Amino acid sequence: MADKVFLVIGAGAGIGGHAAARFAQGGYHAVLARRSDEEGLAKLVAQIEDAGGKASGTLLDASADGTIEELVERTESEIGAIDTVLYNLGAQIGNRTLDNTPHRTFELGWRLGCFGLFRLAHAVTPRMVERGRGSILVTSATAAVRGNAGQHSHAAAMGGRRMLCQTLNAEFGPQGVHVAHIVVDGSVDAPDTLGKLLGDRFEAYKASKGEDGVIDPTAVAETFWHLSQQPRNCWTHELDLRPFSDVAWWNDNPDPKIAT
Amino acid sequence: MADKVFLVIGAGAGIGGHAAARFAQGGYHAVLARRSDEEGLAKLVAQIEDAGGKASGTLLDASADGTIEELVERTESEIGAIDTVLYNLGAQIGNRTLDNTPHRTFELGWRLGCFGLFRLAHAVTPRMVERGRGSILVTSATAAVRGNAGQHSHAAAMGGRRMLCQTLNAEFGPQGVHVAHIVVDGSVDAPDTLGKLLGDRFEAYKASKGEDGVIDPTAVAETFWHLSQQPRNCWTHELDLRPFSDVAWWNDNPDPKIAT
Amino acid sequence: MADKVFLVIGAGAGIGGHAAARFAQGGYHAVLARRSDEEGLAKLVAQIEDAGGKASGTLLDASADGTIEELVERTESEIGAIDTVLYNLGAQIGNRTLDNTPHRTFELGWRLGCFGLFRLAHAVTPRMVERGRGSILVTSATAAVRGNAGQHSHAAAMGGRRMLCQTLNAEFGPQGVHVAHIVVDGSVDAPDTLGKLLGDRFEAYKASKGEDGVIDPTAVAETFWHLSQQPRNCWTHELDLRPFSDVAWWNDNPDPKIAT
Amino acid sequence: MADKVFLVIGAGAGIGGHAAARFAQGGYHAVLARRSDEEGLAKLVAQIEDAGGKASGTLLDASADGTIEELVERTESEIGAIDTVLYNLGAQIGNRTLDNTPHRTFELGWRLGCFGLFRLAHAVTPRMVERGRGSILVTSATAAVRGNAGQHSHAAAMGGRRMLCQTLNAEFGPQGVHVAHIVVDGSVDAPDTLGKLLGDRFEAYKASKGEDGVIDPTAVAETFWHLSQQPRNCWTHELDLRPFSDVAWWNDNPDPKIAT
Repeated sequence: MADKVFLVIGAGAGIGGHAAARFAQGGYHAVLARRSDEEGLAKLVAQIEDAGGKASGTLLDASADGTIEELVERTESEIGAIDTVLYNLGAQIGNRTLDNTPHRTFELGWRLGCFGLFRLAHAVTPRMVERGRGSILVTSATAAVRGNAGQHSHAAAMGGRRMLCQTLNAEFGPQGVHVAHIVVDGSVDAPDTLGKLLGDRFEAYKASKGEDGVIDPTAVAETFWHLSQQPRNCWTHELDLRPFSDVAWWNDNPDPKIAT
Repeated sequence: MADKVFLVIGAGAGIGGHAAARFAQGGYHAVLARRSDEEGLAKLVAQIEDAGGKASGTLLDASADGTIEELVERTESEIGAIDTVLYNLGAQIGNRTLDNTPHRTFELGWRLGCFGLFRLAHAVTPRMVERGRGSILVTSATAAVRGNAGQHSHAAAMGGRRMLCQTLNAEFGPQGVHVAHIVVDGSVDAPDTLGKLLGDRFEAYKASKGEDGVIDPTAVAETFWHLSQQPRNCWTHELDLRPFSDVAWWNDNPDPKIAT
Repeated sequence: MADKVFLVIGAGAGIGGHAAARFAQGGYHAVLARRSDEEGLAKLVAQIEDAGGKASGTLLDASADGTIEELVERTESEIGAIDTVLYNLGAQIGNRTLDNTPHRTFELGWRLGCFGLFRLAHAVTPRMVERGRGSILVTSATAAVRGNAGQHSHAAAMGGRRMLCQTLNAEFGPQGVHVAHIVVDGSVDAPDTLGKLLGDRFEAYKASKGEDGVIDPTAVAETFWHLSQQPRNCWTHELDLRPFSDVAWWNDNPDPKIAT
Repeated sequence: MADKVFLVIGAGAGIGGHAAARFAQGGYHAVLARRSDEEGLAKLVAQIEDAGGKASGTLLDASADGTIEELVERTESEIGAIDTVLYNLGAQIGNRTLDNTPHRTFELGWRLGCFGLFRLAHAVTPRMVERGRGSILVTSATAAVRGNAGQHSHAAAMGGRRMLCQTLNAEFGPQGVHVAHIVVDGSVDAPDTLGKLLGDRFEAYKASKGEDGVIDPTAVAETFWHLSQQPRNCWTHELDLRPFSDVAWWNDNPDPKIAT
């Protein structure tokens, strides 16, 4: 059995995969779960092992009943105690008018963006509470703190996700479980999500952002590592990440209402 | 057909009923929808009519497929154009640990707290956009802006609700539809909700809050009326309401971290 | 002596003057204070009197020691008890780089944007507390909730203003004094402030915003009136105002980070 | 000349001193500035040197004109290029009613809490912009995001501080200067600030918070180090820190409004 397990739900070639690599480098056994692409998953596991780390991979349909629960159970019984879990499932579907956001799309957004985290918390917190320690890291989006046009499904899911992180932290923090909500407020160099969303335009898009204008998932992974290693007398619950060249979500630049 | 219709979903004897009365007094035909208690509903309608206003009542299971949609359709075809709709369904179930918050409870919270508003917006916005005007008022809770211990279901639902209000406003504001999110940050003198939650302790609770220490739903209704009458050059999208004697949600008083 | 006095500090032809007219219409004696333009001031007073209301005007350098204090003293002894005071001084100087924001500019921004409100509160709260009632309305800006490029002086002053409103409310709310912070998130049809800032371009600017694209100060005044009339069981402490056609400060539309 | 300089303004035995030690350990020359206690300052410098690091100390009255400016000038010319500066001056004076908060107290709060950071930014940003890199870390307080009773001076100063961080970041981020605002939402084991505020009660207070119930400044320093080392494609601008056993500022626990 591994001493410490890092479990990531949503392990693509972007933030999830890089976080797995960072925790493996730090001595954790990394368990990578993703919905599809067995080949891509195997490649991520192999890369970690080639670098001297320990890793396992599994396919997972997080929206289906019982799947997350079974994964937590299996990981704990076969691999080891989950010290840190990263909930890294996104629910971004691009900008769509309300008219183009069917009921089932909105519901699926909630299932992946909010309900899945609730289910995960149900499954892991009893174990973490028993051990008196554990970290639940949650990748999130600007849509968790403001709702833009076209983001009906995404923002409603993410707004719920952030509030859920706060209720989880309020209940479980005092029991030793650290819940952190990380707003990624910029484009990530993530071939499996943004890359697929943009398709052929991905490389041109990255070039248009300039040098260091797109977030490197290695850097996100380093911040996740830092959060998981904070001693319990000094925890961060909310923080944001963005490239230096991006305007923060709360800014427009220059302010067209005032410009003189 | 009525000139102007005010529709309220969640028309108990508290905020919903008083809002209906206020809009009826202002010349609207009030349509009151609530889940149960046909007698209570009939009483609210009769009170409005006795005061010289126009009103209709209907029972509605807002969590069931198609019900909100059918109500909007029926109201528009039988009564008149919906000028203002108030989404007044709550999802507060008291404080419960995660362990005592089953999956179906969390899902029901979302269905009433968030998905119902999405369904309502789907149903009314095409009509409002066509008319170039309309107001969607949304009663909300402190749980929409911060998640307290025990509020897993409520806060996740309300956090989604607030973000949804922002995405709706971003899309429909420029088309003449005013969406307002009202955080009620205090106890309301509402016999059908807080009254039922507290039961026999309701009167003692109100007495313990002192004179004017509980929100009078008449006052909430007056603010809702003000919001609906704001000209489109000057709209409010978010505001809060609380008794003078209550501590605002963002305060503790005095701050135990600093007290000297 | 007047029954009820409404005092406005920053009484130009925009929000301040219209608020004075609205409160005079509601039966208050309006006291208008502004820094300069005795003729403009006399005209505002005359308009109120012509409409059957009661008003007085005075010039005031709010940045000078003792001036606000003397005005409060004089108003209470010569005119009547101040029921509602509106702190309406702005500190917007347009967008300036840090390099173009001298120390004295930053300090003056604070004196007008933040310190003046503190001085006003010092002067009026003892009287309001003794009477067990009173309202302090504070016109504010988007810069109170987020800092844009070029807004160093304005945002630092307004950020302090908002926090001060919260501390005032926390201390004085339970004593019957209602403090409300109103974020005006849009351009106001205010000839004495935005008009002077834009000069010859003011009319073209307003035209460019389209019909109802600029806030009518009459509408702001109506909301201020509503706030002052809320019963103490149901107070609003923070709200925002903007034209229907403007993007709220928290939005960009469409989101360039996601557009597909 | 040193390769990289870390300058801390407000270098007591708590956060400031520990941050200096951490950056010295990472290869920076640490420059420690504080208002008084030459002996305490010398001791901090000696501790860093004993551990193999480089450090210098200076006394500084940050509220006096020209002092911060002169320190920056002297540091750059005599020691080396300032890579990272930590503005660590607090303005907490305990809870005081408005009546007990004189004008000069409020002004001094602003001078230390807000204006000093503005002056520092004026002095260091031209050099950082020329070099295309630099970090400005700002220790802040919960009072920057909400105003509690009795915090008039502190909250107004800190609210301005936070908005100033946002305007600085909006202007200088794209030029390579990283501005981070860190809300320390809990008690720190800091003998020179909280220790002096509480006096004899300090040890009993810490004991009452339980194991790990008070923030260890070593942990804060580690997070500051992490922030300063983030690559520019992935910067954090705002984050919070608190002990696991503390209630976050946005929570009360349990919610007395709902408890059933």
